Amino acid sequence: MTIGVLGGGQLGRMLALAGATLGERFLLLDPSAESPAGHVGELRVGAYDDEAALAELAARCSVVTYEFESVPVAAVRAIEARGVPVFPPPNALETAQDRFVEKSFFQALEIPTAPFAKVDSKDDLVRALDQLGLPAVLKTRRFGYDGKGQAVLHTKEDVDAAWAAVGGAPSIVETFVRFERELSILGVRGREGSAMSYALVENHHAGGILRVSYAPAPRIDAALQVKASAYVERIARELSYVGVIALELFEVRGELVANEMAPRVHNSGHWTIEGAETSQFENHVRAILGLPLGSTACIGASAMINVIGEMPERERLLRVEAAHLHAYGKDAAPGRKLGHVTVRGATHEALVDRIERLRSIVG
Amino acid sequence: MTIGVLGGGQLGRMLALAGATLGERFLLLDPSAESPAGHVGELRVGAYDDEAALAELAARCSVVTYEFESVPVAAVRAIEARGVPVFPPPNALETAQDRFVEKSFFQALEIPTAPFAKVDSKDDLVRALDQLGLPAVLKTRRFGYDGKGQAVLHTKEDVDAAWAAVGGAPSIVETFVRFERELSILGVRGREGSAMSYALVENHHAGGILRVSYAPAPRIDAALQVKASAYVERIARELSYVGVIALELFEVRGELVANEMAPRVHNSGHWTIEGAETSQFENHVRAILGLPLGSTACIGASAMINVIGEMPERERLLRVEAAHLHAYGKDAAPGRKLGHVTVRGATHEALVDRIERLRSIVG
Repeated sequence: MTIGVLGGGQLGRMLALAGATLGERFLLLDPSAESPAGHVGELRVGAYDDEAALAELAARCSVVTYEFESVPVAAVRAIEARGVPVFPPPNALETAQDRFVEKSFFQALEIPTAPFAKVDSKDDLVRALDQLGLPAVLKTRRFGYDGKGQAVLHTKEDVDAAWAAVGGAPSIVETFVRFERELSILGVRGREGSAMSYALVENHHAGGILRVSYAPAPRIDAALQVKASAYVERIARELSYVGVIALELFEVRGELVANEMAPRVHNSGHWTIEGAETSQFENHVRAILGLPLGSTACIGASAMINVIGEMPERERLLRVEAAHLHAYGKDAAPGRKLGHVTVRGATHEALVDRIERLRSIVG
Repeated sequence: MTIGVLGGGQLGRMLALAGATLGERFLLLDPSAESPAGHVGELRVGAYDDEAALAELAARCSVVTYEFESVPVAAVRAIEARGVPVFPPPNALETAQDRFVEKSFFQALEIPTAPFAKVDSKDDLVRALDQLGLPAVLKTRRFGYDGKGQAVLHTKEDVDAAWAAVGGAPSIVETFVRFERELSILGVRGREGSAMSYALVENHHAGGILRVSYAPAPRIDAALQVKASAYVERIARELSYVGVIALELFEVRGELVANEMAPRVHNSGHWTIEGAETSQFENHVRAILGLPLGSTACIGASAMINVIGEMPERERLLRVEAAHLHAYGKDAAPGRKLGHVTVRGATHEALVDRIERLRSIVG
C-alpha cells in the first residue's frame, strides 16, 4: 500500500520514516527535486496544481495526506474527485487557511480567543480599533506563517504602516494578548472517530520561528491539561477530522486562549519521536490508514531544540548525553529549519543543563 | 554523505531508517530487486561479487558496512582496496565465518565455550567424540545459520547420519550444552576505540529461528551482566572492531558459555529501537561514521516478538497497548522474517499479559 503526501519537506520525511516502520511506502509530491523526503520515499517532482501529478497520486495511493496547511484546497478536491480519500479532510484545510473563519470557528465551539474583527479596508481597521482597543495585531486572513504578514499596532498612528505591511489584503485584527507563555497541544483522531491528545507543550519562539519546546510544559495543573485536551478534541470532532492536529494557545492568567490551529503534524510535536509512547508521525499514519491509535503517554520529560540556518557539528551535539539528532538532509540557508535535537530525561529539571548546552551549540 | 551497505534486507532497512534520522543517505547492494531496504534508501541491484557494483559503492560512499555475516570477504576487500573503509573490519567477518576459528578466538580471550574439536573427516569425528563424550553437536565450520548445517549426536550410531547431515564439509564438534537459557548481548565500539554494551537479553528460539527476546533478561545478577559486557567488549577490542556486534551465550548453572558472535546488528537487538536510549541501528551508524556513541541504557523493560511466515492483521497487533510494529515490507513465505513487534513497560512482569496476547496474535 502506498501513501501519498502533498509536500516533501521534513514533515513529509518524518511521516515517511514513521510509516515505513509500519510497512508503508510513500509517494511524495513536491515542486522541488531537492525535497528531503525524497531521500527516504519516492519523490514525484511537480507543482501542486499539476493535474498529471495529482492523477498519478490518486492512481497509485490508497490514501493521501499533506504536510503543510497552505496546500491548495483544489489539489485536495481533485484527488478526492478521483475516489481517493484525503486526510485531514479539506474542510479542516479551509478553516485553517483563513484566520477569520478559524477564529469564528473557535468562537462557535466556545474555545476562548482574543477579541477579533474582520478587516477588509483601512476604515474597517480604524473602526475595529475603536472597539477592540490598543495594542492590537493585524494579520492577513490567508497564508501567514512564521510571523509573516503581521503587524502590531501600538497607537492609531500605526494604521497606515500596518495596512501597508499586510499589503491591503483581507485581514483580521485582534487584541494583542499579553500572555505568560505560548503553549500548544497535539490531538489525533482516527477514521472510526476515537480522539486522543498529547501533553501540553511550552514553546519559545524567536524571529517568529519556533526555537525550543518543553514537553510536557512545566508547571501545568491537571485542570488546564484537561481543558486543552477538550479543546483540541472538540475541534477534531467538529471537523470530522482524521490525523494529527496542532492547536497553538496562549496561557493568560491561568486560562487558555486559542491562537491558531494547524491541520497536520507540527514542529511543536517533534519531541514525541522519543518523548511519547507513539510519535505524532506514527499516529498520523495510523489515523489516516484507519489503524488503532497508539498511546500518547509521555516517557519522562523532553525538550526539543530546532536547528535553524546552520547545522552545527554533529559530534558536538551527539556528545551531549541522551541527545537525539534529527537532520533533515537540507542545504543550509538563513532561517531554514535544518533539523532538531531532542533530549529526554526523568524530569524537566534533570534536563536543564543539557538544554543549555545544546542551545549554546545550536547557537 | 552516503553510506554503502552490502545487503538490502530488513537489517539494512532499519540501518537506513536510523541513519536517515542523522541526515545520512544510503546505497544498498543486493541481488534482489525486491529488497525491502530499497523502499527507504537507494537500491543497487547486483551480486556481491559484481565488480562494477562494488566499484560504484566505493566511488559513491564514504564508508561501507554490511548486514549479514556471510558476505564474501573478497567483496569487502575489493571496496577497501579502493580506499573506502569497511566496518566492521574484515577480520571480524573472517573470524565469524568459521566456527572453528571463532571458538578458538573465544578460547584465546579466556571466554568460556563448550569443549570443541575440529572435524575434517568421519575419523576425526569418532576420535573427537571419544574425547568430548556424548551428546554432542556437529556443525559445519562455514555458512551455518538459523540451525541449518547442524546435527545432534546422542550415540556413536549417529556418526554416519551426522556426517551426512553436514555434507562431509569441514566442521567442528562440540559437547552438547545443557543450558538453562539462551542469552545474548550487543556491544558497540567506535572508531576512536570507545566500547559499550547493552543489557543481556533472554532469547527463545523455535525451529532454529529466534521467536522472542526479553530485554533486559529477567533475573540477571549484576555480576553476570558485568561478565557478559566484559566478554563482548574484549572481543570488540581484540578485533579493533567498529560497529555493533552480537554475542550469543548460554546460561549454564549461573555461568556464561559463548556460543557464537555476529559482526553486525542483530535480531536479538531489535528491542533497542524503543527499549534503549539509542537503538543498535543508530549506534552502528554512529560508530562507522566516527560519531560519539549514544547511551545504551534501557528504558524500562521490553519484549520483542518476531513475525514469521505470515503477517497478522496490523489492527489486531496495534490494539495491544504500547505495541510497536515493525513491518519489513516483504512478501509472506514460510519461515521468513516479515517483521517484529516490541512492547515496553516499567517492568518485565507488567508486560507478561501483553506478550501473551501478542504471541497468540502472531501465532
